[in-house]
Amino acid sequence: MTRVAIIGAAGYTALELIKILLRHPEVEITAVADQHENRPPIAMIHPSLARRLDLCAEKLTPAEIAARAECVFCCVPHGVSATLVPPLLDAGVRVIDFSADYRLDDATSYEQWYGHKHPDPERLGRTVYGLPELFRSEIPSARLVANPGCFPTSAILPLVPLIKADLIEPQGIIVDSKTGVSGAGRTPKLTTHYPECNESISAYNVGRHRHMPEIDQIIRRATGVSVEVIFTPHLVPMDRGILSTIYAVPKRSDLTEEQLLQTLRDFYQEEPFVRVVDHLPGTKDSLGTNFCDITARIVRGRVLLISCLDNLIKGASGAAVQNFNLMYGYPETTAL
Amino acid sequence: MTRVAIIGAAGYTALELIKILLRHPEVEITAVADQHENRPPIAMIHPSLARRLDLCAEKLTPAEIAARAECVFCCVPHGVSATLVPPLLDAGVRVIDFSADYRLDDATSYEQWYGHKHPDPERLGRTVYGLPELFRSEIPSARLVANPGCFPTSAILPLVPLIKADLIEPQGIIVDSKTGVSGAGRTPKLTTHYPECNESISAYNVGRHRHMPEIDQIIRRATGVSVEVIFTPHLVPMDRGILSTIYAVPKRSDLTEEQLLQTLRDFYQEEPFVRVVDHLPGTKDSLGTNFCDITARIVRGRVLLISCLDNLIKGASGAAVQNFNLMYGYPETTAL
Amino acid sequence: MTRVAIIGAAGYTALELIKILLRHPEVEITAVADQHENRPPIAMIHPSLARRLDLCAEKLTPAEIAARAECVFCCVPHGVSATLVPPLLDAGVRVIDFSADYRLDDATSYEQWYGHKHPDPERLGRTVYGLPELFRSEIPSARLVANPGCFPTSAILPLVPLIKADLIEPQGIIVDSKTGVSGAGRTPKLTTHYPECNESISAYNVGRHRHMPEIDQIIRRATGVSVEVIFTPHLVPMDRGILSTIYAVPKRSDLTEEQLLQTLRDFYQEEPFVRVVDHLPGTKDSLGTNFCDITARIVRGRVLLISCLDNLIKGASGAAVQNFNLMYGYPETTAL
Amino acid sequence: MTRVAIIGAAGYTALELIKILLRHPEVEITAVADQHENRPPIAMIHPSLARRLDLCAEKLTPAEIAARAECVFCCVPHGVSATLVPPLLDAGVRVIDFSADYRLDDATSYEQWYGHKHPDPERLGRTVYGLPELFRSEIPSARLVANPGCFPTSAILPLVPLIKADLIEPQGIIVDSKTGVSGAGRTPKLTTHYPECNESISAYNVGRHRHMPEIDQIIRRATGVSVEVIFTPHLVPMDRGILSTIYAVPKRSDLTEEQLLQTLRDFYQEEPFVRVVDHLPGTKDSLGTNFCDITARIVRGRVLLISCLDNLIKGASGAAVQNFNLMYGYPETTAL
Repeated sequence: MTRVAIIGAAGYTALELIKILLRHPEVEITAVADQHENRPPIAMIHPSLARRLDLCAEKLTPAEIAARAECVFCCVPHGVSATLVPPLLDAGVRVIDFSADYRLDDATSYEQWYGHKHPDPERLGRTVYGLPELFRSEIPSARLVANPGCFPTSAILPLVPLIKADLIEPQGIIVDSKTGVSGAGRTPKLTTHYPECNESISAYNVGRHRHMPEIDQIIRRATGVSVEVIFTPHLVPMDRGILSTIYAVPKRSDLTEEQLLQTLRDFYQEEPFVRVVDHLPGTKDSLGTNFCDITARIVRGRVLLISCLDNLIKGASGAAVQNFNLMYGYPETTAL
Repeated sequence: MTRVAIIGAAGYTALELIKILLRHPEVEITAVADQHENRPPIAMIHPSLARRLDLCAEKLTPAEIAARAECVFCCVPHGVSATLVPPLLDAGVRVIDFSADYRLDDATSYEQWYGHKHPDPERLGRTVYGLPELFRSEIPSARLVANPGCFPTSAILPLVPLIKADLIEPQGIIVDSKTGVSGAGRTPKLTTHYPECNESISAYNVGRHRHMPEIDQIIRRATGVSVEVIFTPHLVPMDRGILSTIYAVPKRSDLTEEQLLQTLRDFYQEEPFVRVVDHLPGTKDSLGTNFCDITARIVRGRVLLISCLDNLIKGASGAAVQNFNLMYGYPETTAL
Repeated sequence: MTRVAIIGAAGYTALELIKILLRHPEVEITAVADQHENRPPIAMIHPSLARRLDLCAEKLTPAEIAARAECVFCCVPHGVSATLVPPLLDAGVRVIDFSADYRLDDATSYEQWYGHKHPDPERLGRTVYGLPELFRSEIPSARLVANPGCFPTSAILPLVPLIKADLIEPQGIIVDSKTGVSGAGRTPKLTTHYPECNESISAYNVGRHRHMPEIDQIIRRATGVSVEVIFTPHLVPMDRGILSTIYAVPKRSDLTEEQLLQTLRDFYQEEPFVRVVDHLPGTKDSLGTNFCDITARIVRGRVLLISCLDNLIKGASGAAVQNFNLMYGYPETTAL
Repeated sequence: MTRVAIIGAAGYTALELIKILLRHPEVEITAVADQHENRPPIAMIHPSLARRLDLCAEKLTPAEIAARAECVFCCVPHGVSATLVPPLLDAGVRVIDFSADYRLDDATSYEQWYGHKHPDPERLGRTVYGLPELFRSEIPSARLVANPGCFPTSAILPLVPLIKADLIEPQGIIVDSKTGVSGAGRTPKLTTHYPECNESISAYNVGRHRHMPEIDQIIRRATGVSVEVIFTPHLVPMDRGILSTIYAVPKRSDLTEEQLLQTLRDFYQEEPFVRVVDHLPGTKDSLGTNFCDITARIVRGRVLLISCLDNLIKGASGAAVQNFNLMYGYPETTAL
């Protein structure tokens, strides 16, 4: 049994995380920390948790958290995370960080993309990136795990096996991604106001989304090959789900769909949460699950990859629990 | 040709109003007023108006508005409206007010339901309620018209003919209404944040929605009969549309569906925007139109009425243009 | 460990049932039966089951099913069910029937509402209605359980405690229900074609929905009091969820909201899946769970009840597993 | 005043066409033809047309249609259209054909992509493609106009000015398109059944969608340059709207966004229905209008174009009326 705490209670990833952890036979949630002054019951913040989790959201110091929990899931925004994580680690807890603060290679690229100096630059580039399919061996001993971004997972998983097998050109890879609205978080904004984004699709942050360098750097970490993907996210009127359509140039003109699919199948054959499928997957197939579905096609000589996942599960909270299971020696699929 | 101004540019009713007025052959929109300091082009506020209306949103005094327009559509919230309308009227323009400020009978009930003193109490109870189907004769000469609420229109239109014909009991009428999210306005709030209200239906403001007294008072004005409806609004995951399901006790046990339908058909046979239909209407049938669709059933001895309309058209901006046409002597259906 | 079979593989209730049973530590799914000739893998019918259930949908006789399973979940339409259930029971398996075939009191009312003679009339009125909150004691020994309808569960659970406590009049109860589209099943029809029902709400089967007599008869079974509810279902543009808004006349004019809520809380205080809440619940609060959320209000002297549940879980497959757990002596909440 | 007939009444393009034509001051709809035996009122097929169009859907011969109308809008599927159009032309009416039957260059490519021999091969390659922005001069005198496909319009309009200006490479152009569900037509299918496609996005017909050769051939007709686009359509949970995200390689490495935008602005500066915008457009901006919104970006040295339109208006019925206006000498924007 492991006692865990959650920091940042009000968001969708925290809610989804709690739902998964409530199914986990070896987890006790002992604290839910956030900035509310008046200790509201968690069910007031998330009505769906009524009768399921009887805790209040509290302001807690790192020491107080460490007194209650061995492991902390940190669900706060980037920038904030890097100020909370160091004292938590110092207090002796292990941390799974949902923010982007510990994913990039160095403080320079962090500052370039995130617009402020990194508060804890030493850990950049040395923190485990919590994508077990690529970095499983590093996770069990990690004291801090950077939980992957939702878009990066959907791009990295299909691309890495093909780059490693030297089947596609690393230049000019296009990642055209579509996401449900929960990816934008729970803070009301005009762009995610129902009558604005319902019945509409639009691209956003074109050329400057922060998941673009994350995709580049993690692919290089996993393959040793430098890439510069062209990444375009789109907002789709649905709650959850990411579909990425990826275009790449094959290295050999006689490459076949079957070779692509077999390369993917071979790479992921032992993986419990990657399904290489023959059909064209929809995001609903993996909704509410920790699966990432992948398929491949060749269209007019171009490699086309499609991946689907639930941005709140495999793209966030499910991946976090997968990392947790590896860190604490539980079967990797527990509660997932 | 009539020059018109719109006050309160950023909301959905203003947007829909502009779209209708752009189709109106006898209207020139000369000003769009709101509180923006920096005079943004209206197409920055509503991208759908690009290339369609080349005006900026400006802060304007009543005198400035009166210098440019004969008629003002006032699309600001209740409370604000009653402070803008008097100086506009004094400046010589006619006003169609979208807010609830001039709909109720008296300042006492206004204060009871809206929670503050009415800034212009003398006009309460003396202002024309702009529902042409019931009060058409009063509209042409009105200098101020109170444009009806969306829910009230959907409740009053089916009920009034049956109450006037003495077919249903005035006591215990239940109005169970369902509305799309645009009815909540354009200001982002948690309840209308996409991932909160999508894929969910909920009741809100049960027993205390401000359209409840409006329904009561207007039915009494139209029929002379006092009613106290039990009104329950629900938020439905769709952009637009109101469906009201209304339950009433018949006065005679041998009342038939055909008598109900015929009474409604007779009452509205000359009306261009009320469709008494035999089938069960959906809100999509009247989407984007100024129609109100009505049907009637008898279920286990109870009268059941169903009405559908587009909350932004017949429930707001379409009704406003219908009133405008009557006020200025244009054919009532122009642009609608 | 109990071996179970599912008949009727292609529908949404079967899919949801399989997902729940896959989480059940004491269940082995040994057969999925339906009318497909070519034994398709279940993952071809439901892509979301890829890598989760490695079975094919087969045509199986009752004897073949009985050879593989002790318990059968029968997810076929009414009319069909009553021809499959008798031979299954004869073959020695226990059956949880999702159809309406064994819910009503007698063959006469069945024929009146369902339009054909009942193929197995003797079991009508003698079959356990699988709503554990009201009939728990009858379920453990039952060989056949009639799984409740989704709308009836949403109406019966809030009404029974108040009728038993003699707080509301049994006459004139109105049940205004709103359901997501999955309740209409998986067979494509124009009314459930995406561009028809999206962005629209409509009432359907007004005065003749077959859940109306089911609500009446089960309330009478549970309370001894005869009721005739006026039931109006509406189709809402969302996948899942039912919200019922219920109106009733109180027996005493001094009845308070707190008395209503306390009566409900007392009645359900030991129930794991009924949440009596103070706030107005939305269907999303119980989405994906076996909960039914209930609250109560008094509006202008009328009792107003609101209940929410997931039509595919508490309204179908979750209730079935709850019944299964009771039948086989597992903790009632297992896998739920 | 021009008398027009519509063939193929039941679909969404016909419905939208009728709504536009009802606003057209110079059009009288004299017949609505389809295969119904029993002459249903058009309002039974489309309830939204109640009180708006008082015609029945009739089986009519070409001669009967020609006796009533000068111009026919043919809204039937490909394959059928090419059997109806020749006798209509022979009977003396002019035809605007919504199907794909007269869009391609030759019968060989038609057979390759549509899987059957073309019934009227001589007109292929000689029929005007009704995209006024590129082929306006050919339309006024045409007796048959092939109305463009919805996806092709969204791809051709942004690409042609840049190819003509020699700014982008014709090879390797990627068109990643996203469409609302109405594009799939009104016939119920599992893929467009609400609970299947709601809350999900998926790619379909990858590498074999019939709009792919249409895009190629029309771009060549308009520019003289051969292209082979890689076209991937996706189904998005919304009623209407197409957004195409287009990726191309610039011919010069110093090409700027402003040069791209200016080239587009120059090309379309006189066009009433193309809006070159600076912001990232969403499909909702052009919903219900005949606009196509276009913008351009450069991302990591790659040209990125985004276009949005309403698939039922600029992608079908609006374009048809635009063509009609040109054919009959009415102002091109009438009713649009």
